Amino acid sequence: MSAFEPRPPFYLGIDLGGTNIKSGVVDDSARPLSSISIETLAEKGPVAGVESLAEAGRLAVEASGLSWDQITGIGLGSPGTMDLSRGMLLEPPNLPGWNQLPIRDLLAEKLGRPTALQNDANAAAYGEYWAGAGRDARSLVMLTLGTGIGCGIIVEGMIVEGRHSHGGECGHIIIQMENGRRCGCGAYGHLEAYASATALVKRAQELLARETIPSLLRDLPEPELTSRAINEAADSGDELARRLMKETAYYLAVGAVTLLHTIDPDILLFGGGMIGAGESFLEEIRQHIQSMAFPTVAKGARVEYAELGSDAGFIGAAGCAQLAFGRP
Amino acid sequence: MSAFEPRPPFYLGIDLGGTNIKSGVVDDSARPLSSISIETLAEKGPVAGVESLAEAGRLAVEASGLSWDQITGIGLGSPGTMDLSRGMLLEPPNLPGWNQLPIRDLLAEKLGRPTALQNDANAAAYGEYWAGAGRDARSLVMLTLGTGIGCGIIVEGMIVEGRHSHGGECGHIIIQMENGRRCGCGAYGHLEAYASATALVKRAQELLARETIPSLLRDLPEPELTSRAINEAADSGDELARRLMKETAYYLAVGAVTLLHTIDPDILLFGGGMIGAGESFLEEIRQHIQSMAFPTVAKGARVEYAELGSDAGFIGAAGCAQLAFGRP
Repeated sequence: MSAFEPRPPFYLGIDLGGTNIKSGVVDDSARPLSSISIETLAEKGPVAGVESLAEAGRLAVEASGLSWDQITGIGLGSPGTMDLSRGMLLEPPNLPGWNQLPIRDLLAEKLGRPTALQNDANAAAYGEYWAGAGRDARSLVMLTLGTGIGCGIIVEGMIVEGRHSHGGECGHIIIQMENGRRCGCGAYGHLEAYASATALVKRAQELLARETIPSLLRDLPEPELTSRAINEAADSGDELARRLMKETAYYLAVGAVTLLHTIDPDILLFGGGMIGAGESFLEEIRQHIQSMAFPTVAKGARVEYAELGSDAGFIGAAGCAQLAFGRP
Repeated sequence: MSAFEPRPPFYLGIDLGGTNIKSGVVDDSARPLSSISIETLAEKGPVAGVESLAEAGRLAVEASGLSWDQITGIGLGSPGTMDLSRGMLLEPPNLPGWNQLPIRDLLAEKLGRPTALQNDANAAAYGEYWAGAGRDARSLVMLTLGTGIGCGIIVEGMIVEGRHSHGGECGHIIIQMENGRRCGCGAYGHLEAYASATALVKRAQELLARETIPSLLRDLPEPELTSRAINEAADSGDELARRLMKETAYYLAVGAVTLLHTIDPDILLFGGGMIGAGESFLEEIRQHIQSMAFPTVAKGARVEYAELGSDAGFIGAAGCAQLAFGRP
C-alpha cells in the first residue's frame, strides 16, 4: 500500500459507527498498512453486528498483506454508552438493540486476538495524538463537531476515560446555565446544544423564522439546510449565515476556554464535518480564545484542525491496542 | 507526636500562603510527624520570604524528631502564577514582588534537599487524594472555596498540571457565557465569579440593595457581612440568606457537572472555609448534580467535603516530593 518499511508489532483498529465500520492494520509507528470500510447494518442487531466487525477486521488484515499471527491485538472504537472496564456496550443510542453487549470479548473470541474497547471519540483523539495533528504533543483535547460534539482528552499519553467511562464527554459541559438551550441529551445549556452541526441548523431555522433579512438559506428546502450549506452561504457573503457561523465560533471558544482552564493541553483540536468551514472559521475561534483565556494559555496553546479525517478512529483504536497489548 | 510507627522515607512538605507558611514532615504512608505554622510576611520580599520558607522547614524537621539526613525530599506548594517545569514563580498576585523567582532551586539550595514545586491548590488536592477524603479514589477533582475558587485534578495518581501550569484552574471555567458576572481575573461568567466566598458576599450586597424583605444581614456592618455570617443567617432561617446559599449550591453544581462530564472522577471534593456551611449545603449541591449530570455519573460519583482542612496543603506538598523523589 505504501513505500515505508512497516515496523512490527502490528495492531488491528476497528472504528464502529452507526452507518459504517472502518478498519485497518496499523504498525507500531502509527502508519496504516490498510484501510477498508463496510456498512454496519446496525438494524440487523448485535449478533450480525459483531460478525460485521469481524468481517471488517478480516478484510483489513487481508488488505494489509500480513497474516493473522502477525497481529498483536485489536482495538475497537465504538459509540456509547459503555462500560470500558467490562468491555460492554450499555445502551448505545446509535446502535439500537445492541444493549448490555459484551462486545469486546465477543469480538476477541471471534477473531482470536486480545481486544481493547474504547469510546469512539476517545479513540479518534488518540489517533490524532499518536499520528495526526497532535503527534508532537504531550497532551491534547479534541472536539469532534458533527450531529453531536464528541470529545477525547489525552494527558501524558493517557486517555482520560473516567471512572464511569464518561471522561471527555465535553459536548455536555454547561456553557450557559441560565435559559440554556436544550441539548439532545435532555439537559440544558450544554456546548453541544449550541455548537454541533445539528444545533447550527436548528439556530438557522430559528433565525430565519425570526428575522426578515434576505438570505440564501431561505430558498433551501429543509433537507438541504445543512451545516455545510450554512457555511457555504457564509463564504459567499450571506449576512445571516455569517452571523450563524460567527456565533458558532464564539460558542466553541467558550467551551474551549473551559477546557483550556481545566486540562491546559499542548493542543486543542477541532475535528468532524464542520471543519470544512476552513481556516477563517478556525481563526475566529482562535481570536475569541485569545480574548477570553488566561494570557499564558491563550498565547501558548495551539488551536488547530484535526488531520486524519475519518481515519482517526481506526488508527486511534489500533493505538489503544498498542497501549493495552504492546510492549511495556 | 503520635502512636504509629513512622515508615521511611520521609518528606518535608511546605505550604506557602499569602499570610502563613505551614510545614510538616510526612512519612511514606502520608502520616504527618509534625506540623508547624509561621507568618509569611510576604511584604518583606522574596529574599526574606525564601528564608522564612527555610525556617518553617527547619522547625518542622526539628519538631518531627528526625534528622535532616532522613529527609528524602521537599515539596513546596505555592500560590501562582508559576512555571512548574522551571520551578519559578512568575507574578503571584498574593505575593507582591516575588516575581520571576526561581523559588524551587533557591529553597533546595538553602535546605540542601531536592525540592519539587507545585501549585497550592494542586498540592491540597493531592493531599486529600493521598491521605484524606480521596484516599480510596483513583481520580479526584477538588474545588477549594475561599476568596477565589482553587482547584486540583488528579487522574490515576497523576496531577493534571497542564502545559502552561494552568491545569485545574477550574475557578475560571465559564458557566454563564451571556451576561456573565465579572470575575476577579477580569473575565466574565467564571464559576469563581458566582460561587467563591467573595462572590457570595458581593451577591448578598446586591440582593440587600435590590430587595426590601427583612434580613438579619441588613443589620451587619459591612466588614461583618462574610460568607460565614450569610451561612449562619441561613441556618437560623433568614430567607434572603437561604436564597443566597441555595443559589451558591446551584452554581457549584453547574461547575461540578462540567467537571464530572470532563474528568468523570471517582470523587469530587469541596474544601475551604465555605464548607463550614455543613452537610445540608453539600446535600443541596448533590441534589442539583443528580438532576443535571448523566445518570451513570450522577449515581456513581461521590461528592464530599475535604477532610484535611488546612493540613491538606503541606501533606500534599510532601506527597509531591514523594512523587518526584520517592521510590520508583
